[in-house]
Amino acid sequence: MITRPTLILDKQICIDNIANMALKAKQNNVILRPHFKTHQSAEIGEWFKEYGVECITVSSVKMAEYFASHGWKDITIAFPCNILEWKVINELASKINLNIVLESLDTIQFLEEHITNPVGVFIKTDTGYGRTGIKADDYTSMQMLLNQLKECKNLIFIGYLCHAGHTYKAKSIQEVRDIAKDAKEQMLALKTFLSADFPLAQLSYGDTPSCSIINDLSDYDEIRPGNFVFYDETQAQIGSSSKESIAVALACPVVAKYPERNEIVVHGGAVHLSKDSALNEEDEPYFGTALRLNNNQWDINEVIGEVCRISQEHGTIKVSTEIMESVKIGDVVAILPIHSCLTANLMKEYTTTTGEKITMMT
Amino acid sequence: MITRPTLILDKQICIDNIANMALKAKQNNVILRPHFKTHQSAEIGEWFKEYGVECITVSSVKMAEYFASHGWKDITIAFPCNILEWKVINELASKINLNIVLESLDTIQFLEEHITNPVGVFIKTDTGYGRTGIKADDYTSMQMLLNQLKECKNLIFIGYLCHAGHTYKAKSIQEVRDIAKDAKEQMLALKTFLSADFPLAQLSYGDTPSCSIINDLSDYDEIRPGNFVFYDETQAQIGSSSKESIAVALACPVVAKYPERNEIVVHGGAVHLSKDSALNEEDEPYFGTALRLNNNQWDINEVIGEVCRISQEHGTIKVSTEIMESVKIGDVVAILPIHSCLTANLMKEYTTTTGEKITMMT
Repeated sequence: MITRPTLILDKQICIDNIANMALKAKQNNVILRPHFKTHQSAEIGEWFKEYGVECITVSSVKMAEYFASHGWKDITIAFPCNILEWKVINELASKINLNIVLESLDTIQFLEEHITNPVGVFIKTDTGYGRTGIKADDYTSMQMLLNQLKECKNLIFIGYLCHAGHTYKAKSIQEVRDIAKDAKEQMLALKTFLSADFPLAQLSYGDTPSCSIINDLSDYDEIRPGNFVFYDETQAQIGSSSKESIAVALACPVVAKYPERNEIVVHGGAVHLSKDSALNEEDEPYFGTALRLNNNQWDINEVIGEVCRISQEHGTIKVSTEIMESVKIGDVVAILPIHSCLTANLMKEYTTTTGEKITMMT
Repeated sequence: MITRPTLILDKQICIDNIANMALKAKQNNVILRPHFKTHQSAEIGEWFKEYGVECITVSSVKMAEYFASHGWKDITIAFPCNILEWKVINELASKINLNIVLESLDTIQFLEEHITNPVGVFIKTDTGYGRTGIKADDYTSMQMLLNQLKECKNLIFIGYLCHAGHTYKAKSIQEVRDIAKDAKEQMLALKTFLSADFPLAQLSYGDTPSCSIINDLSDYDEIRPGNFVFYDETQAQIGSSSKESIAVALACPVVAKYPERNEIVVHGGAVHLSKDSALNEEDEPYFGTALRLNNNQWDINEVIGEVCRISQEHGTIKVSTEIMESVKIGDVVAILPIHSCLTANLMKEYTTTTGEKITMMT
């Protein structure tokens, strides 16, 4: 019985999400190297193996250690390499196929001086997101990095890696298509420009909106979506998934009702959902959609209301007068998260709809 | 040596913050019942004992269990009572002085039917924050709750509890003073109105901005500030503390530099700092202030820049051209958090400036 904020996982939805992405990768003849930062769970990782997944992506050296300790042998740390962690990187590289992501001469130089085991290297390539990476059309900088990499003994150049994270700001499916098309053209042009020296360079492409929406991904060697394993309100808004494909919801006990302002308050706040917000139809920020929960199952058609405010432990849900009358103190509602990666990271444990507990990296 | 995002705690600043609040409580002849949701650490809790603190506040039943298991015998759970947790509440009440916070007849009725051990009860009183509680001037509702409480065997009415959380939105010290004055008048009027039946009702007052800024708190029986143990950017903006009084900072390795856009990227993102933001002087959201870190010590005068964007693991810091030239990949910077409660909750461990590890509730 649920008595506290609990992250419910619908295993069937999750498996379907994995199956769909694995099928798309297969149809495109690309490797699916899913990003495990979303679920951070060795047990959920096992579900991917059923679909032939052998290579994964993580967002930190710590997460690489965790999944390596759970049997994963081919891991890309898709974050600009933190040279301070070179010892752990070097140790991991002695045990598994480890790839890192680089974008600076200083980092290459430092690693080459310190690393004694071969490490695969992707050059982080910026196709317009503007967070990290060398701009895809900055061939001069690319060439400089590659020239230096050529001289390295243990840094083995594999290819170019981009994360078109600006799809997260897209307001329509067409906008995602445009961003993905632009990214593909940039990546292909980059590969072509440098193909004389690096004909075998791989192209690695990320982000759940693109990988969910775009059908033709065949120009890439691998795709690295992560969030698709659960999806969330943000993805449903973008159009990457339907609300039916959201695989996690936070179960929250109702603790107070305010009929005079049409609000109910639940135990479920920023330490459970995170403070990530999206804009609702009235262009106001909200923190999740509350649904009815029956026998640990939510129904996306039974909407209670939107989480309109959030503090450390409180979530405030705006409800209609009818809902106000039907919801009782002691009921448990299900909140679809705005950003499932952050919610999962906070909750540190899943409870399936059939009551099974699933642990995560701590 | 710091190689990963690490939450640094300056123990001396923290102890000074505790000492100052304990002194203020003593001068006002009120009980300091600090809110432990900020630090969530048994070890840091011990530091309060040196200053005579015996009663504490927590924000969940789980947190009450944690601190009770670490020897605390007088705990108020300052969150609208979640009746689904009545068994744990009942068990805790058999071992310690446990107070809960109520605001509905349904909750009172349910608990009276289920609870077998005496539990102290505060009525949650809303003095204008508008999150939870009975409005302080809604004497009719108050009277109804109190009449029902009078009939209860194990629910022992203690007093009225308010959290003037709207001080967090204050733009000046004067605004905090105005909110606190208004809250005090409402609380005193409430007590006076019901004094014929409940002459001994206590007044419990919360929130760090008020308790830090207001000197005369002598009308209350107890105060429950929490954030003051660390303070943060938000409190410094409000004027509750100086930046010098901020006791925690997130140490983050520099992983990338972008001179063309005057930005550096660190390992330190939403899973470390939280996504809480404040507005900077240009009225734009920011996620923390980055400072230089030398030997695990930060200096608030050595500002590197503001964290202008944040994602799951990345923090992007806007810097000047001079700073860009002086900061190197592999440096570690210190970020003062916007909201130290959420940052501490995410990090789950402190490292003191002298390298000692301090654990938290998990």
